[in-house]
Amino acid sequence: MKTLLLTKTEVDQLIKMPDVIEAVEEAYKTFSSKQVVQPGYIGIALPDHRGEIDFKLGYSRVNEIISMKAHSGGFTDNPQKYDVPNSMGTVLLFDGNSGTLICVMDGSLITGLRTGAAGAVSARALARKNSRSVSCIGTGNQARMQIRALVEVMKIDEIHAWSRTPDKRTQFKTEIEQEFGINVTIATSKKDAVEQADILVTTTRGKGDVIDASWVKPGTHIVAIGTDAPGKQEFDPEIFRTARTVVDSVSQCCEKGETSHALEHNIITRDGIHAEIGEILLGHKSGRESEDEITLFDSTGMAIQDNTTANRIYQNAINRNIGSFFTFFE
Amino acid sequence: MKTLLLTKTEVDQLIKMPDVIEAVEEAYKTFSSKQVVQPGYIGIALPDHRGEIDFKLGYSRVNEIISMKAHSGGFTDNPQKYDVPNSMGTVLLFDGNSGTLICVMDGSLITGLRTGAAGAVSARALARKNSRSVSCIGTGNQARMQIRALVEVMKIDEIHAWSRTPDKRTQFKTEIEQEFGINVTIATSKKDAVEQADILVTTTRGKGDVIDASWVKPGTHIVAIGTDAPGKQEFDPEIFRTARTVVDSVSQCCEKGETSHALEHNIITRDGIHAEIGEILLGHKSGRESEDEITLFDSTGMAIQDNTTANRIYQNAINRNIGSFFTFFE
Repeated sequence: MKTLLLTKTEVDQLIKMPDVIEAVEEAYKTFSSKQVVQPGYIGIALPDHRGEIDFKLGYSRVNEIISMKAHSGGFTDNPQKYDVPNSMGTVLLFDGNSGTLICVMDGSLITGLRTGAAGAVSARALARKNSRSVSCIGTGNQARMQIRALVEVMKIDEIHAWSRTPDKRTQFKTEIEQEFGINVTIATSKKDAVEQADILVTTTRGKGDVIDASWVKPGTHIVAIGTDAPGKQEFDPEIFRTARTVVDSVSQCCEKGETSHALEHNIITRDGIHAEIGEILLGHKSGRESEDEITLFDSTGMAIQDNTTANRIYQNAINRNIGSFFTFFE
Repeated sequence: MKTLLLTKTEVDQLIKMPDVIEAVEEAYKTFSSKQVVQPGYIGIALPDHRGEIDFKLGYSRVNEIISMKAHSGGFTDNPQKYDVPNSMGTVLLFDGNSGTLICVMDGSLITGLRTGAAGAVSARALARKNSRSVSCIGTGNQARMQIRALVEVMKIDEIHAWSRTPDKRTQFKTEIEQEFGINVTIATSKKDAVEQADILVTTTRGKGDVIDASWVKPGTHIVAIGTDAPGKQEFDPEIFRTARTVVDSVSQCCEKGETSHALEHNIITRDGIHAEIGEILLGHKSGRESEDEITLFDSTGMAIQDNTTANRIYQNAINRNIGSFFTFFE
């Protein structure tokens, strides 16, 4: 038995955003075709070390791959004390036909990439075709990933950015303008940023003030990324009264997504969710129905996105003969 | 960051049964000291391939290691169709201080070894000191593992063996006599085997006829291995009325161990469980109290046994400079 080992550098070489966007579309379609087994994730908290490791499993009956992603986060002392990053990841891939371990790859890059791609997939399916202006609430790594993915599916003329931390806004402006040559305007307020948006991307930690529903102009497409766990919230749930709500997973979004707050406040019922994004991609449900309507994509992140993305990396490695094989047993 | 890779051959070289027995004792003590985090395992069923992969996680606050064991089973077509075994395993070890992946090892051997060691740990703690005769109900691989471990903690003069399949009995006799030079008598019936036992080891799939409580002679120590999932049963639950019941984990044994049947039939209550084996090893609870009493150890298997055993393998590898390091990222 041979297992392919892929370093972070190799993974980086093997996967480009257009591939990730395709992989995430595949994930959503497979999920909404009921071809996915995706048990609840397991988190092991390490409060003494201010860290946590999460384990997420996904099986696709279409590609016959089982993925296991271990992802650590927190561990604030890591750089100084151990000379390793705060957050690390490892992905294992098993062949579902035989249970064989076919690949061990560094998994530090996958979560960021597939979450970025999620926004672009939703924008391609739901945003107005003439969308040109993107507003980012939150200016961290994931905001950069969202831009990296959006430029693959649309032409962005301008970006408006807002963050609670002035330094981060400035850094974001400098870096994004340099990387993409797109003009970034630092908004004068959160409201100001929201009002400028054709596409509104929220990637905060979901702990700040919420976005007022009245700020969102007709025709906006919202990519709601930051709320992926109980206790997080980025929007006044009133937005759900008018928006066409699309989710990655009905069950996850009702439990821990932005949608959960709308349910809790009885603003919508579960039936008020228009569709899973996979149903739209499969053509089973409609997408945007007018230029004026607000569409909202609630993304909580699914193990199957890791599965299809990692499998794409693995297939590219095999095709391009990159990586090293290791024989765990004869 | 460097991760140690260990092949099956290296793992085999690096761990001998006395080490596993120590590791399992450490696991039980750590567990009963409440220093273990051990979430419910996740199983992914692959009915189309007649297989399953289970993922078991354990964290010890004492050794600061998080272990993840992936274990496949079933996959009956594997040898012919894919030239790989039916059952395979992989273990990952993470440093709990930083979340760093420190080791990837083949995990095919660990489950068998640590389950074998469990019986020996219980026998050392609970069997009569003058025990000389072991009876095996079930003669598969795990029965062999139990003998391999028991010979490390006691002198076995004779073994009586019973299996439903005549061929397997004969094969067991031949192999055990050759490996250990201990005389193996094939019992004339299950009852006959049970009646001869100082130590009674049951390792069937828990699907056959149960062992009658009246067959078990006073002073016997029972190692009940086969019942580790709902639907399995090896004993008439009446045995719990007289036996001193010791479990690996109260919660697991009440849910899916031999003990679950005694609870279900109201033969004992949860309070009727004398102790967890770890509590006895720690000296917090008594062990056997007379030569005449029957002691019963109900083993369902815990992730923390994989953790301490795999960590022992890892430590031995570091000390003996065995294995190859791989740099997943700089």
